[in-house]
This record gives sequence, structure tokens and C-alpha cells, in this order.
Amino acid sequence: MKKNVIIGQSGGPTAVINGSLYGAACEALKKTEQIEHVYGMINGIEGFLNNKLMDMSTLVPTGELELLKTTPSSYLGSCRFKLPESLSDEVYPKLFEKFEQYNIGCFFYIGGNDSMDTVSKLSRYAEQTGSDIRILGLPKTIDNDLVETDHTPGFASAAKYVATTVREIATDAAVYDNKKSVTIVEIMGRHAGWLAAASVLARRFDGDNPVLIYLPEVAFDQEDFIQKVQTALETTPNLIVCISEGINDGNGMFICELASDVGVDNFGHKMLTGSGKYLENLVKEKLGVKVRSVELNVSQRCSSACLAKTDLDEAIASGAFAVNAALSGKTGLMVAFDRISDVPYEIKCSLKDVNIICNKEKTVPLEWITKDGSDISDAFIAYTRPLIQGDVEVPKKDGLPHFAFRR
Amino acid sequence: MKKNVIIGQSGGPTAVINGSLYGAACEALKKTEQIEHVYGMINGIEGFLNNKLMDMSTLVPTGELELLKTTPSSYLGSCRFKLPESLSDEVYPKLFEKFEQYNIGCFFYIGGNDSMDTVSKLSRYAEQTGSDIRILGLPKTIDNDLVETDHTPGFASAAKYVATTVREIATDAAVYDNKKSVTIVEIMGRHAGWLAAASVLARRFDGDNPVLIYLPEVAFDQEDFIQKVQTALETTPNLIVCISEGINDGNGMFICELASDVGVDNFGHKMLTGSGKYLENLVKEKLGVKVRSVELNVSQRCSSACLAKTDLDEAIASGAFAVNAALSGKTGLMVAFDRISDVPYEIKCSLKDVNIICNKEKTVPLEWITKDGSDISDAFIAYTRPLIQGDVEVPKKDGLPHFAFRR
Repeated sequence: MKKNVIIGQSGGPTAVINGSLYGAACEALKKTEQIEHVYGMINGIEGFLNNKLMDMSTLVPTGELELLKTTPSSYLGSCRFKLPESLSDEVYPKLFEKFEQYNIGCFFYIGGNDSMDTVSKLSRYAEQTGSDIRILGLPKTIDNDLVETDHTPGFASAAKYVATTVREIATDAAVYDNKKSVTIVEIMGRHAGWLAAASVLARRFDGDNPVLIYLPEVAFDQEDFIQKVQTALETTPNLIVCISEGINDGNGMFICELASDVGVDNFGHKMLTGSGKYLENLVKEKLGVKVRSVELNVSQRCSSACLAKTDLDEAIASGAFAVNAALSGKTGLMVAFDRISDVPYEIKCSLKDVNIICNKEKTVPLEWITKDGSDISDAFIAYTRPLIQGDVEVPKKDGLPHFAFRR
Repeated sequence: MKKNVIIGQSGGPTAVINGSLYGAACEALKKTEQIEHVYGMINGIEGFLNNKLMDMSTLVPTGELELLKTTPSSYLGSCRFKLPESLSDEVYPKLFEKFEQYNIGCFFYIGGNDSMDTVSKLSRYAEQTGSDIRILGLPKTIDNDLVETDHTPGFASAAKYVATTVREIATDAAVYDNKKSVTIVEIMGRHAGWLAAASVLARRFDGDNPVLIYLPEVAFDQEDFIQKVQTALETTPNLIVCISEGINDGNGMFICELASDVGVDNFGHKMLTGSGKYLENLVKEKLGVKVRSVELNVSQRCSSACLAKTDLDEAIASGAFAVNAALSGKTGLMVAFDRISDVPYEIKCSLKDVNIICNKEKTVPLEWITKDGSDISDAFIAYTRPLIQGDVEVPKKDGLPHFAFRR
């Protein structure tokens, strides 16, 4: 008897998480001899528990399936639902009853650390109970912090957005080049500095902006920072400094927390401020130069304008690879990328044990962070540059991007 | 004897201010029978007073001139230099000596209100002193607040960036559609709400986000705002609210000022917060729902990814038109756009008296602001939509936009 396939998305969205969905759905829809229906989970396993799912084949005649490739954010909706540690919790039989109810033979979950934790638990439960359902993880996260894979889909397009935007901000900052100024750009990344590091790609020549780059991997020293800003201003009057939101003192205190206990608004709420805003005030106080901070915010993960073709192609490939792996009996694994070479850039898909991936974080190697924690090495550039290559044309309607949209 | 031409840029940059420069420079470089040299002023009239200028023809062999079209920000650098009201100030003869020194016959200044003030004063001084130098203004401002012209170059690309980004943020916000949330997007515009109004273009159908839009033209009522947010959340669980940074109480008090006297950082500095951040706290306090605020920031004026072809073409055309007008003896005027029709969209360039343009601000007509100041009419959409049409391919190098760059 033919079985059905279900695909879910979980955690924070990226620009290509729907590329992975597209890749898996297309491949599964082709396998008509083995697969009956291809379902999409609405709002991850949380929605699935409430029978929220859709038939992905309905997107073919409307053209929505093709639109998925260039639609940022999670088309199927997401959830943040952590399964209990104990596999004897009642949620497990409940979920597997649902799988049975919908005759699911393969379940693909697209997500980051937490989603891989879900894949790990469900595949262990399946093994324990003798279920033959195949459960596989597809990586996605702009944070690039999954172990056992060269990189994660979503990182490159976010990195391209960061590098493009930092270059544009540097161009903007340079118009009053007869006056000194500092622009602090705050980039996503709480514990891993991959995205902030990618700002180095905006640099066109030695000494070009961004001159200073700070990641959470190295303890942030405020005095040293001010000293470096002062020195840099002598040769770069319109200085761009890029920081991860998660820069910290090395003892568990985020820089942004240093300010958060000070401001209180009309309602008595703490005025939470970002690390960039804190450093803006620090520079103003210590150096008295013109300074502003810019938070790149959610556009880092949902901008469609800076989609990297390499990233999108790989997301699609990971989806197709997962379907074939599951059909050949694989379970409890995550699709990973193994890099074969930088020049010419070449990777291949592989499968890694999801149990050693979940709940771990891959940070930027310390040897790629230079100049006492204020710069990024050429090795990082060699690693990242191939990933951001290639542009993707986004279909337009009335002058604006035309996205797939689930009503 | 042949004369020289000089072109300057002033005020805040836009995505197409270099398009105007390109248009003027190309046209002037063609007129070899009337024009000897085509100069660019570095850092506006402030730099010119210090002999900072360049020969634009040097950009032809390097290909930099072509790159100008897709390079955001002011290639020549900018200044904020207000000429004294009294035409008997010593700066006027100084400037005109410089014009004479460089054998300038035509001066083109690309800018907004303040730059048109410079054009007004210099052309009046020229008239007073019998100088035959022709001085013309070329409009540019993302704020779209110049009178006597249908719109200004730079507005449309910024509007396209705003609408695109708001649509992407709405897509991002919808992934947890089983939970209520409010996202407040703060958009540039201190006194005129054109850009915030452009967020309405992100709306695909009646009731789609952004559901609420607030401009500085209408007094902002906090209680009414909270009421409207509450009502909107009933039908739109992931609500997007767009606001101009300049929303105010109608009595000269900006909403962002209501919070600014509260927070004080470690150094005793006031923690200046934006209107979006203030409203984020207000919604949290009054409604207790999940809420975040996003400030679109400088990318609104310097993003190259959302260049509107119509905008760029018009900027280039305005430059060429100015050169021909000056050569036919016109002075003391600004190039303006007169709209001939919306469908099909058609405009023509004209010349308007710069004296009635400078130091005035064109705000959004009140009849285009609906639902007690919380929405935008179809008439605004009919006005703005033609302006954002067409994409522009930006040359890339190593996966990132390749911009013209003055060392």
C-alpha cells in the first residue's frame, strides 16, 4: 500500500526555507509509485496535533508551488513546540496516532537546533515502538550554527543581505566625508557570529569599511573598543563598525544588558535597548563624534531582494535528497552539506545522525577572528564568498514581489 | 569662448541622486560645441569654496560613469551649508569668483528644499550683479515634499523599498498565525507622510496588512490608536502597523518625544527612542499582546535592490533636461515633473520658479488620508503605483552590488 508524506517547518523563518519545502514537495510529488499524498503541516507539529495540514498538490495548478521558491518566511507557518524529554509522555502516542490516521510513511521537518531535537525524539520513539515511519531533518537557519554540516540553507542569503546592506550604509555614511562619524550596525546572532562576520564581504580593499567587526565568540572590552574606534577614525573619517547583537563581556553578560536596567518608560517598563544603541551612547560619551546605530532587524531573514542562487539551489537540493533518502529507508538523520572544494565551489549532500546535531551550537572558529577580536580572517571570506553567489529573479506584480500566500 | 559646467549634490542622499548626476553629466559631455569641461563639485558648494572639484569626463574610460546610475548615495559627496539671507554677505562674491576662476557658465544643484534655497539665492545674486551664469535646480528627495512638481526623483525607489520590506515583514510576522502579535514599522518622514503612506502598496487585498497606517499630517490620538489595534487584532491576528517617524499630537509634540525624557543611560544621556519603540511599549502596556517595532532606517534611501526603473529614468531625464534648459538661457528655475496621465502613466519635464519652491513643504493631501487618520485612499495608490514600476539590474562583483566609488 502506498504511504503519504508530510513536511513541516519549524523555528524562525529564512529566505529559503520554502526552497527546502519546494524541493521536498516536488520530489515527493514525482514519486507517484511509492507516495500517495504529499501533505504540508500547518504550524509544525503543534498544528498537526490539531489536524492542521494541507495537500501540497493543490499548489501545482495555481502556480503557487513555483512561487514558493522565491517566497521568504515559512509558507506552512511555524511553531516553537519542544517535545518533552521523556519518551513516555502522552504526546508521543498522540502524534503517532495522527501519523497513522493520515497514513504517513515519511515525515520531513525543516528547522534548526530545536527542530532537530524533535526529529531526534520522534525517531527514537519510532524505534522504541517498532514504527517504520521515516523521520528526517532538513537544516535551515540564518545563524549557520548547526554542527555536522558545512553550512545551513538560509545563512548565505542572510549573509548576502548583511554584506549588501553594510556596503550601502557605508556608501550613505560617506557623503559628508569632511566630517568624522561612526555608524554602528547591529546584526543578528545571539551566540554565533556568522552573520556579523559576513559583513566583512562588504569590504572592497584593505582599510575599506567595515573596519571593525565584533562577534559574540570573543569577550568584548569596552575600553579597547573605544581605543580602536579612535585610531580607526584617523584614517577612516566615516567609520562603520559591525557587531553581533550577542556581543558580551565573556562572563555571560550581554553588552545590551549593561544599559537595560537604566531607562524606564512612562509605564515603568524597562526600556530594552540593543547592543548597538548602547555602543552609540558609549562612543558619544567617550569620543564626542557624530554617531548613529542601525539595527538590521528581521529583513536579514526575510528579504527576497538578496536571495543567493547558490543558497536557494542547495535548499531545493536538500529537500529532494531527503525524499530519496527516506524512500530508501533512512531515518533519524539530517541532510548535511559536505564541502568538496572552495574553488571551484562544490558540495555534496550527505546524511548525519540527528542525535549528535540537536542542541549543539557551532560558533565561528576562533582562528577566523583576528586583531584581538575586531576583525575577520581571509579564511572566513574563502568559506563564505562562494555561498552568496548568483542572483535570483523574484516574480513581480504591480512593481512588488509576488509571494505565495496561504489564506 | 566655450564655458564650463559644474554639477553639485546637496542634502541627504537617495537611491537615484546619482542618476540625476549621470543624466546631467552625459548630456553636458555631449555638448562639445558649447561646453568645454564638465565638473563635479565635491561636497557641494562648501567643498567648491575650498576648490574641491573633479572632471566628470575622467569617469568615462573607467566605466564609473555608467556605474553611477545604480550607485546609491551622493557620489560627489554632500554638504549642509545654508547660504546667508543677506546677499551682501561676503560668501557670495567669493563663490562667484570661484565660478569665474573655473570659467563656469552653468551650475546645476541636485537637492531638496535647502538646495533650492541655494539656487534661489545664487540666481538672485547673479541677477543683481549682472552675472550671466545660469543656475538651475534638480529635485531629489525621498520625502517627496517639494511643491510645484508632481513628485521628486528618489521618492519612488524609497517607496518601493518601503512597500517591499513591509510585505516581507508581514510575511515574516504571519508564521505563528495561531498567536496574536503586533509589529510596528517606523518609516522615514518627519513632517510629510509620503513614504509611510507608500506602505499601503504592500496590501494585496481588502483587510491585508498593513491594516493601520499613520502619518504626521493628522494628529495622533493614543487612545483611539489602541482601540483600533484591538479591533484589528480580532480579524488580523498578526497585525502590521506602519507609522511615520514624525507622528505627533497635532500640537507640535512628536510622539517619540513623549518617551525621550524618561530613560537616561549610564552617562546621564537621554535615551532617545523612536515613535515605534514608544508605541511598542504602549501596546504592551494596554493590550498585553506580543509586540515588536522595526525601524526601516537608512536603507530606505540607500538600498539599490529596490530601484524603480521609472524613478531612475526620470532622474536621468531631469538631468539632461536641465542641461538643455541652461544652454537655452534659462536660470533661477527647478526642473519639475508635470503628470499628463495616470493610465498610461505619462509625465513631462517643465521648469518652475525656484523662489516659490524653496523652504516650502508639500504634505500628503488630507483627502488621501482616510478612516480618521489610520488609512490611505485609493487616490494615493493611483498616484504612487505607476512611479514604482520597473526593475533595474545592478551590476554585481563577487556576488555583491558593484558601486561607483570616489577615492
